[in-house]
Amino acid sequence: MCRWLAYSGSPLRLHALLFETQNSLINQSLACQRASVATNGDGFGVGWYGTQKKPGLYRDIRPAWNDDNLRSLAEQIESPLFFAHVRASTGTATTRQNCHPFRHDNWLFMHNGRIGGYDKVRRCLEFQIPEALYNERIGTTDSEIIFMLLIGNGLLSDPADAYRKTIADIETAMQAQGVTEPLRLTACATDGERLYAIRYSSDQAAPTLFYAQGQQVQVENGTCAFTEGAGSVLVLSEPLDRSDACWNEVPEGYFLTAIGDRVTLQPVVPAEPISAVA
Amino acid sequence: MCRWLAYSGSPLRLHALLFETQNSLINQSLACQRASVATNGDGFGVGWYGTQKKPGLYRDIRPAWNDDNLRSLAEQIESPLFFAHVRASTGTATTRQNCHPFRHDNWLFMHNGRIGGYDKVRRCLEFQIPEALYNERIGTTDSEIIFMLLIGNGLLSDPADAYRKTIADIETAMQAQGVTEPLRLTACATDGERLYAIRYSSDQAAPTLFYAQGQQVQVENGTCAFTEGAGSVLVLSEPLDRSDACWNEVPEGYFLTAIGDRVTLQPVVPAEPISAVA
Amino acid sequence: MCRWLAYSGSPLRLHALLFETQNSLINQSLACQRASVATNGDGFGVGWYGTQKKPGLYRDIRPAWNDDNLRSLAEQIESPLFFAHVRASTGTATTRQNCHPFRHDNWLFMHNGRIGGYDKVRRCLEFQIPEALYNERIGTTDSEIIFMLLIGNGLLSDPADAYRKTIADIETAMQAQGVTEPLRLTACATDGERLYAIRYSSDQAAPTLFYAQGQQVQVENGTCAFTEGAGSVLVLSEPLDRSDACWNEVPEGYFLTAIGDRVTLQPVVPAEPISAVA
Amino acid sequence: MCRWLAYSGSPLRLHALLFETQNSLINQSLACQRASVATNGDGFGVGWYGTQKKPGLYRDIRPAWNDDNLRSLAEQIESPLFFAHVRASTGTATTRQNCHPFRHDNWLFMHNGRIGGYDKVRRCLEFQIPEALYNERIGTTDSEIIFMLLIGNGLLSDPADAYRKTIADIETAMQAQGVTEPLRLTACATDGERLYAIRYSSDQAAPTLFYAQGQQVQVENGTCAFTEGAGSVLVLSEPLDRSDACWNEVPEGYFLTAIGDRVTLQPVVPAEPISAVA
Repeated sequence: MCRWLAYSGSPLRLHALLFETQNSLINQSLACQRASVATNGDGFGVGWYGTQKKPGLYRDIRPAWNDDNLRSLAEQIESPLFFAHVRASTGTATTRQNCHPFRHDNWLFMHNGRIGGYDKVRRCLEFQIPEALYNERIGTTDSEIIFMLLIGNGLLSDPADAYRKTIADIETAMQAQGVTEPLRLTACATDGERLYAIRYSSDQAAPTLFYAQGQQVQVENGTCAFTEGAGSVLVLSEPLDRSDACWNEVPEGYFLTAIGDRVTLQPVVPAEPISAVA
Repeated sequence: MCRWLAYSGSPLRLHALLFETQNSLINQSLACQRASVATNGDGFGVGWYGTQKKPGLYRDIRPAWNDDNLRSLAEQIESPLFFAHVRASTGTATTRQNCHPFRHDNWLFMHNGRIGGYDKVRRCLEFQIPEALYNERIGTTDSEIIFMLLIGNGLLSDPADAYRKTIADIETAMQAQGVTEPLRLTACATDGERLYAIRYSSDQAAPTLFYAQGQQVQVENGTCAFTEGAGSVLVLSEPLDRSDACWNEVPEGYFLTAIGDRVTLQPVVPAEPISAVA
Repeated sequence: MCRWLAYSGSPLRLHALLFETQNSLINQSLACQRASVATNGDGFGVGWYGTQKKPGLYRDIRPAWNDDNLRSLAEQIESPLFFAHVRASTGTATTRQNCHPFRHDNWLFMHNGRIGGYDKVRRCLEFQIPEALYNERIGTTDSEIIFMLLIGNGLLSDPADAYRKTIADIETAMQAQGVTEPLRLTACATDGERLYAIRYSSDQAAPTLFYAQGQQVQVENGTCAFTEGAGSVLVLSEPLDRSDACWNEVPEGYFLTAIGDRVTLQPVVPAEPISAVA
Repeated sequence: MCRWLAYSGSPLRLHALLFETQNSLINQSLACQRASVATNGDGFGVGWYGTQKKPGLYRDIRPAWNDDNLRSLAEQIESPLFFAHVRASTGTATTRQNCHPFRHDNWLFMHNGRIGGYDKVRRCLEFQIPEALYNERIGTTDSEIIFMLLIGNGLLSDPADAYRKTIADIETAMQAQGVTEPLRLTACATDGERLYAIRYSSDQAAPTLFYAQGQQVQVENGTCAFTEGAGSVLVLSEPLDRSDACWNEVPEGYFLTAIGDRVTLQPVVPAEPISAVA
């Protein structure tokens, strides 16, 4: 499994959330608290929005904890919306192309989870990638496929529906191949303005998902605090500190939208994909 | 384009052919003599046969000229059959998985050339990869696809025929997509016993291919010499020294088989693939 | 040898100077025009000033021409003062720590050249690094030593004098060890406000150095143009295009200072270091 | 801290000891059992003796657990004497040059531990490296310095005495700088024939050291077994399986010599270095 965080709000230096808290993402790369695999050392990535629509992307195959470049970028870059991800491979190679986040035009996507029986359904799912997107398939992960299916299923116009359809596509393919392992999907996409996250699994064991919000986030003495108000939101795999003050857990089976000052949750309820297929 | 060499014969330290000649493969990585692109710095790889049927593989993304590990392995490893390749990317990413040679069971394959209009035919050709092989597709190059199509077309039983069919498959796909750029293919495959090489293009401009043979190869003062007799053969992109004594050029459109002490050449003559399809 | 450029002036996206000109630094990494070694593929680095006094640093061991991260950072980062360097090793290892620029507090330094007989003088020169700086020695190049000697010799208060003293220190050490190879030094340092460059050698064969200036630099159709006026300056190893319009060559043996709108040149004239020692 | 193993005996494929046991070195890279830091993901290395006096060396900066090259080399290489090491940095950079083992002519050396207050004593200790060896200093670790001091102190003729003198040198330097952190040193050197290991610390908290011996080592179902007799020996940081059958712990403060069929232990008893200095 992996760990990730997405931030949207007042421009913030990446360093604060990546390096400065007790359970910072960098610390999670070495030893995270709430996942089956503790070490997330198979590469990492950050994506951020600057003055252009196209976000920047820095991904590398080293463990995040020993990358001086990441530290320097995190010190320099201030951004109103950024993604960061530390990877624990579920089988595919450690290449930059397999590191999250993935980018398509002004969109970013990152993921923690896995498609059960990926070896059995990979070919079928790759063939469902829209032809126009096919050459953007530059890696080999299940996560990159999910992103492309999402785009094909209307991510740009109706993210909640795109998640539903993509889950249905994947579960249909898994069922067709007799896969019994689960689909688990705790992911986040953004168009540079809103965050669209999901916590879903086919076996009620989706990786954790949390959020916190307020007017501004402040990191002091390793602890994260949000000032009263609205405008900033953090969506992430697990809390960044040991305090319970600000963290809200997203329940299994829910879809989250964060639009600057408002977080909304709605059940995923996939449109009965399996019976629809049989 | 890339540069490569394949050796079969008396066990030989890789170092002799990779590092010790005037125009050694390592020197070619920095500045080769007979190709449109002089620098082959987008990764490299060696494959070699030891005491097992499965060959060893060492590939990395650095330029070959500054890799201490390659130097050390080349000093240590003696092998009766090995491949070495320095890469100049034609567009796909610099990852280990995109470096040659590629391996399938006891087989190795490497390539210099390109499928014209790869962006247009990639999807179609990936779908022609045999299903049983699909999960061995761990990179994104056209070269890896060619290897998989070769296997699907009978490489293991009739290499010459597999090359012919694969060329037909690729040219058919290119024609279907209206690709006007050429297919160029100077490649080599081996099962650990024989070398099966080809120099082919759809526009009479295939990358060069040479061979040399004799009882034993000797490298002295930067020059390669083969002693009288049979038993060792070298098939490669370009001569390793400035002497013309031992190097034979393979003509465009020819298929080469090297079986220890005998090199045979036969025309490729693709079986009129295009009209057969129309 | 290496290639580098330093820019100071109106905030500019790195991409313009690194990627968009005919003879851009990235093109120079693959094949530069005016150096003894054409390929600069042994790593690269960029250093830039943002909103803090401490500059950012991104260095990696890949050739610059195939690094997607560099491309993305260059697209995102706008800076009023930045350094970029592509490296051709003169013997030391390809590690990030050996890539330029080097950083000390708010200072950056980069270099093209070499200390002749470095193997013979390295130990002596390392012992001349000020003790307080010694743990900042994290690589093994002669260039990093030069930077530390410069700091020890007063770079922060009188750069021209620091260059003179450092040249004297190095030439003294070379003479003491009987080194006959030359010292060659085409380098640039900055405190984030001014550029302090030098073109010097002990054998009248220093690597080239150029500059161009104007109100603003504009890159169009692969060509660099400076608008009339003052405010922006570019100091670099070789011109970025084939036009001769804007490039001025710095003569051998000169020290250059660029202070926003003014470039001044003065002879280095080392303070007769050699006779002083004998 | 790090983890390592040294094998000497009947030629053995590296794969058996690196990959096949319950607590294999590769598993230890992800999560070792008996160290303060569980993850050893800051690079790795193997050194092995083949048909030449000079050993082979393969080191890289990735975590050992996700390196396909290491897996392939371990499958191919059979050797009568090899070292393997997984690294957890104690502060110095993750470069190949900082990965163990280190090589000098026909010697290899690797280490787990640290020189307390290294920042304070590094300069002093580097100046004690014999001048003739100085240019072999290509990294920045304390471990590489220890190896060079050992050579300077007679490692090639009297290893036990060289360890003693080197410990004295280091402790003298630490004392001179007022360092209060301990020296900890669990290391192994070899000339290609004998293993010279040590478990020492200045605070009675040296990293663990174990050995096992017999006629041959056999790995089955994840467990290591030694057949009755002599000829093979394994010296290592921690047992490779959960069985207690074959593993002997080396007590703190002991020096171990393994000469094919015989393991001897003797107390280190440094020659009262500290009082000698005061």
